[in-house]
Amino acid sequence: MSSKLIVLNLKTYIEGTGQGAVGIARSCREVADDSGIDIAVAPQFCDIYRVSSQVDLPVYSQSLDPVGAGSFTGHAFVECIRDAGAVGTLINHSECRLTLANIDASLNAARKVGLNTIVCTNNVATSAAAAALAPDYVAVEPPELIGSGIPVSKADPEVVTGSIEAVKRIDHEVGVLCGAGISKGEDLAAALDLGAVGVLLASGIVKAKDTKAALEDLVSRI
Amino acid sequence: MSSKLIVLNLKTYIEGTGQGAVGIARSCREVADDSGIDIAVAPQFCDIYRVSSQVDLPVYSQSLDPVGAGSFTGHAFVECIRDAGAVGTLINHSECRLTLANIDASLNAARKVGLNTIVCTNNVATSAAAAALAPDYVAVEPPELIGSGIPVSKADPEVVTGSIEAVKRIDHEVGVLCGAGISKGEDLAAALDLGAVGVLLASGIVKAKDTKAALEDLVSRI
Amino acid sequence: MSSKLIVLNLKTYIEGTGQGAVGIARSCREVADDSGIDIAVAPQFCDIYRVSSQVDLPVYSQSLDPVGAGSFTGHAFVECIRDAGAVGTLINHSECRLTLANIDASLNAARKVGLNTIVCTNNVATSAAAAALAPDYVAVEPPELIGSGIPVSKADPEVVTGSIEAVKRIDHEVGVLCGAGISKGEDLAAALDLGAVGVLLASGIVKAKDTKAALEDLVSRI
Amino acid sequence: MSSKLIVLNLKTYIEGTGQGAVGIARSCREVADDSGIDIAVAPQFCDIYRVSSQVDLPVYSQSLDPVGAGSFTGHAFVECIRDAGAVGTLINHSECRLTLANIDASLNAARKVGLNTIVCTNNVATSAAAAALAPDYVAVEPPELIGSGIPVSKADPEVVTGSIEAVKRIDHEVGVLCGAGISKGEDLAAALDLGAVGVLLASGIVKAKDTKAALEDLVSRI
Repeated sequence: MSSKLIVLNLKTYIEGTGQGAVGIARSCREVADDSGIDIAVAPQFCDIYRVSSQVDLPVYSQSLDPVGAGSFTGHAFVECIRDAGAVGTLINHSECRLTLANIDASLNAARKVGLNTIVCTNNVATSAAAAALAPDYVAVEPPELIGSGIPVSKADPEVVTGSIEAVKRIDHEVGVLCGAGISKGEDLAAALDLGAVGVLLASGIVKAKDTKAALEDLVSRI
Repeated sequence: MSSKLIVLNLKTYIEGTGQGAVGIARSCREVADDSGIDIAVAPQFCDIYRVSSQVDLPVYSQSLDPVGAGSFTGHAFVECIRDAGAVGTLINHSECRLTLANIDASLNAARKVGLNTIVCTNNVATSAAAAALAPDYVAVEPPELIGSGIPVSKADPEVVTGSIEAVKRIDHEVGVLCGAGISKGEDLAAALDLGAVGVLLASGIVKAKDTKAALEDLVSRI
Repeated sequence: MSSKLIVLNLKTYIEGTGQGAVGIARSCREVADDSGIDIAVAPQFCDIYRVSSQVDLPVYSQSLDPVGAGSFTGHAFVECIRDAGAVGTLINHSECRLTLANIDASLNAARKVGLNTIVCTNNVATSAAAAALAPDYVAVEPPELIGSGIPVSKADPEVVTGSIEAVKRIDHEVGVLCGAGISKGEDLAAALDLGAVGVLLASGIVKAKDTKAALEDLVSRI
Repeated sequence: MSSKLIVLNLKTYIEGTGQGAVGIARSCREVADDSGIDIAVAPQFCDIYRVSSQVDLPVYSQSLDPVGAGSFTGHAFVECIRDAGAVGTLINHSECRLTLANIDASLNAARKVGLNTIVCTNNVATSAAAAALAPDYVAVEPPELIGSGIPVSKADPEVVTGSIEAVKRIDHEVGVLCGAGISKGEDLAAALDLGAVGVLLASGIVKAKDTKAALEDLVSRI
C-alpha cells in the first residue's frame, strides 16, 4: 500500500445507507487491491459495525462526541465507535462543526483508543489552528465547493497550498488532505501535485451510477 | 405481552457498549419472556445493528436528527437507524435536547419510516407541549432526578400525575412514561399506580452487578 | 390604542442598527400615534437601551437566554433586557431556535420580570405545542416565506387559520400573530381577516426606502 | 498608561447588570487613573451602550456572532456592538464556546470594524490553536478554576507558562492573558511574573463588597 489516503465520506446519502454502505465498501476494497492505493470509507454511525464486520477495509467514523462513559444519551462515544470496528474518525466536518475545545477533546479521546484522526477545516487560518492540535491529518475543504462538482484543486488551489504551508510550519508531521468537489482522476492527481497526501470525497463517488468505475477513474492518474 | 412498556436506555455506559449492549439485551429478552412485560433497549447508534441482528428484542435509537438523505455528515438519519433494525426512537432526551421545530421534524421523520416515538420532557408544561405534537409516548423526567437513585414516583409524584392529566387533555391517545431514578420493582409499581403506562430507565439497571436479577426485581411487582 | 399588535423585528439589518434603530422607532411612534394601532419594535440587544431611552415606544428583545444571574458570559439575561427598557421579548424565532425546555424556561424567566412574550413557531403543530406553554402570543412564520416578499396570508393561509384553531383549542387566551412576507396594508388586512390579532414583520419595512411611508401603507387598511 | 491589560468580565452577575455595570465601570475608571494600569470592562450586550455613553473606559463585548447585516434575529452583530461603543470583544469564552470556523469568522468580523480581540482558551493546545488565528490576545482559563477563588497562577502555573511558550512559538505578537480564580493583587503579580501581559477576571471583583477597594488591591502589587 502507498502512503496516499483516500477517504470516502458516505454522509447520509441513501446510496450509502445500510446495505448500500456495505456495497460501496466492497467496491472500495476491490479498487484499493487493484491500485495499491489506501481507500477508507466513512459510513454513518449505525453502519460502522455492519460495514466493518462484512468488509476488510479501514472504516472511519464521520464524527465523534468528546464524552466519556456515562450519562450522555444520543452521543457518539469513542469506545463504542472503536468497538464497532472503526480505525479512524473525521472531526469537525463542515456539516458537523465542533467548538475548538471539543475538537481538542475529541482528538484526545480518539488518540486514547488508537483511532486515526482527520480534522476538517475551511480555510488556511483554521488549517493552521487545527495543526496546532496535532491530528494525524488536516483536511481542508472550502464549504462553498462541497458538493459543487468543482474541484478545490482547480477552483482554489491557493487554499490547498496555503494550508499545506501553514500546517507544515506548525507541525510538519501532520498530513494535509483536501476535499470539496473532488471526484475524478485528474482532481486527485492535481491535489497530489499541490502537495496534499490524499483526498476526502463524497457525492462524486457515492452518487455515481457505477461506483466501482468512478473509483477506478479516481485512482487512474496516480 | 402486556401493554406496559419498559425502555432501558444504555446511554454511553461502558457496561452497555459493544458486546455489553448485546448481553444486556439478552437479559432483557429473557426477563420479558418470563414476565410477559414488554422491554425495549436503547443502545448507542453504533450498537443498534449489532444488538438487533443478535437479539430478538425491540431496539430503540437514543435520538435522531431530522435530516433527510444528503450532505449531513455525522448526523443520525432515520432511514439508517431503521435499516439498522430499530423499531422506535427516543426524541429530545434531556441529555440530547432538540429545538421545538426539530422535535416536530424528528417526529415526522420517524413516523414516515414507521418508528415508534417517545418524546422526553422535563416538567408538566413541556409534557403538554410535546403531547400537542402527537408522539406515541411522552416520557417525563425531571433532569435533577436522572441518575439520582431517587425515583420520580416518590420524589415528585405530582410531575407524573400532572403530566398525565395535561397530556390526556390535549391528546388522550398519547401514553405517558416516567423516568428518572427508577430502578426497583416498587418504583415501577408506583409509576403504574400514578397512571403511567411504563418507564424509561438507565443506570439503576445498566450498572447493576447482576443485570438480570435487577430486571427481575423491576418487573416483580406488576 | 386598539388591541391589534404590530411588531417590527429589526434583525441585524444595517438600516436598523444603532442610530438607525432609533430613527425607525421614531417613525413607528409617529405612525402608531396617527393610526391608533400598537406598534412595537425589536432592535438588537445592544440597541435596546439606546432605543428605549430615546423613543417612547414598546421595545421588545429579539430573544433571551433562560439563564439566571451568574457565570453566563455572552448570554442575554432577562433582568438586563428588562433593565435596558424592554417590555417584551420574542422567543424561539426561526433564526434563533431554542430547545423545548429552554422555550419553557425562557417564558418563565420573562413572566417573572413582567415581559410580554411572543413564541415564534413554524407550522400548525409547533403553534399548538407553543400554546401549551401559555405565552401571551404565538407568532407563526413558515421559514421558507421569511424575507420572501410573499405574504403568508396569501401563500399559505391554512397555516394561519390552522394555527389559530389549534392554539385556541389548547388555550383560548393566547393571541396568534402571523409573519413571513408581510409588508403591505393588504397583507396586514388579510392576516387580520384570517383571525390573527397582529403581525410580526421585518425586511419589508426595515429595508423600505421610506420607512414611515411603508408603515403608513401597512396600517392603511385597518 | 502601561501596556498591562486588565479585563473585568461582568458576565450576568446581578451586581454588574444595568446601572450596576455603570457603577463598576466608574470604579474601574478611578482605579485606572490612580494606578496607570489599563482596565477594561465587559458588560452584557444590553449594557454596552449604557456603560460606554456614561463612562470613559474601554468597553469590551462578552462575545459576538460572526453574522453580517441581514436576517439574523437574536444575534450579536459586530457593527451594532461597535456602534454601541465597544472597542474590543471576548471571543470563545468557556461559557460561550464557538466552533473553530466561527472563532476565525468572528476574528475577521471584529478586525474589519477595528475591535480588539481576545480569544479565550482552556489549555495549552487550544491556546496554540487560537494563536494561529492571530488575535490581539489569547486568554487561557482552565474552566475548572473559573469562579473557584483558586488563582490559576497558583493552582496551575504550567498552563500559563505553557500557553505563553506555545503562543509565542506560533505568533510572537499575540499577547497572553490568564484568567480563572484571579482576584487579588498577589494573583495579578504572579500572573505577570509568569509572563502574562494581563488578566481576565470576574466574580472576585464584581461580587466584592467594595468593588473599588477590591480593584485597588488588585493593582497594588504591580
